[in-house]
Amino acid sequence: MMRIPKRQRQEMLQEKLREGLFLTDEELAVLLDVSVQTIRLDRLELGIPELRERTRQLAHEAHAQIRTMTSGEVVGELIDLELGQAAISMLTVTPDMVFSKTKIARGHYLFAQANSLALAMIDAPTAVTGVANIKYKTPVHMGAKLIAKAEVVKVRGNKYFVWVKTRIDSQEVFRAKFILVSLGQ
Amino acid sequence: MMRIPKRQRQEMLQEKLREGLFLTDEELAVLLDVSVQTIRLDRLELGIPELRERTRQLAHEAHAQIRTMTSGEVVGELIDLELGQAAISMLTVTPDMVFSKTKIARGHYLFAQANSLALAMIDAPTAVTGVANIKYKTPVHMGAKLIAKAEVVKVRGNKYFVWVKTRIDSQEVFRAKFILVSLGQ
Repeated sequence: MMRIPKRQRQEMLQEKLREGLFLTDEELAVLLDVSVQTIRLDRLELGIPELRERTRQLAHEAHAQIRTMTSGEVVGELIDLELGQAAISMLTVTPDMVFSKTKIARGHYLFAQANSLALAMIDAPTAVTGVANIKYKTPVHMGAKLIAKAEVVKVRGNKYFVWVKTRIDSQEVFRAKFILVSLGQ
Repeated sequence: MMRIPKRQRQEMLQEKLREGLFLTDEELAVLLDVSVQTIRLDRLELGIPELRERTRQLAHEAHAQIRTMTSGEVVGELIDLELGQAAISMLTVTPDMVFSKTKIARGHYLFAQANSLALAMIDAPTAVTGVANIKYKTPVHMGAKLIAKAEVVKVRGNKYFVWVKTRIDSQEVFRAKFILVSLGQ
């Protein structure tokens, strides 16, 4: 395969990271068809921290923005947040979250992740849940990493219409539409 | 006021207890306009145990019937259960269930009570939640006693349509419609 010039490769690297914030160096190496070491050197030159540091920075910024609750009240690990717009969290299904008989995750954990993420995103001092329409698409098992993405789709007065979609890898396992109501300014 | 003959009064007492299983002796005394002691003597003669014992018996029978989960997995206190038909549970809102900022109960606790009650009621070895449409009618505060009543309204093949209504005293604070799916015979 033809070698791509360094400048072009570094532009592609930045482009890939804009699309997929959580790509590891190994994944970037595969995507750009270069060695992991090349990726590391490129990141160094471009001043892009490694994945763990990028995640930590994002999470820190995300937590600092929350207005409706204390950041510890988000169920799961908050990964990214654009106040009033969108948010991402991750929840790992631990043994205490599954039914002992079937080892299937109890539905209220997926609900709690989605609901708390939706509320955390609201740009108001207080918000409560009004309505939720939810769909469980496939049973979730122990050990699964649930990535929830929440998005404000509409605002009408003090009502926020929020959609949350939860995936395991690329498979959607749960979705919820919330109407949240802010109680203050 | 005219004194009601004993036999008639005891019939009324039994009637009241059929309507309202959880009436205390004090409440029965007010309803029948007699003293609490009269109620106690009537219960003794009729062989009706006191409220605490009635509740305990019911709960014990309820727990024994559950098929979809272990009885400890019901969120809240299971009070009554008619397998495949209806169920009642009580959840007291404790300090760990509220948002620290607003002291309003976190929505997923009301959801968990309703969802686990709905699942516990299903007459099948395994059931999962498919869909839920839920409505929070008023914020719930610390100390509140949430009484959830679940009812199977329709069964289509392996799909169970269940409604849950949650009250504090006589005020409805939450309702949910679930479609649950049984996975085995």
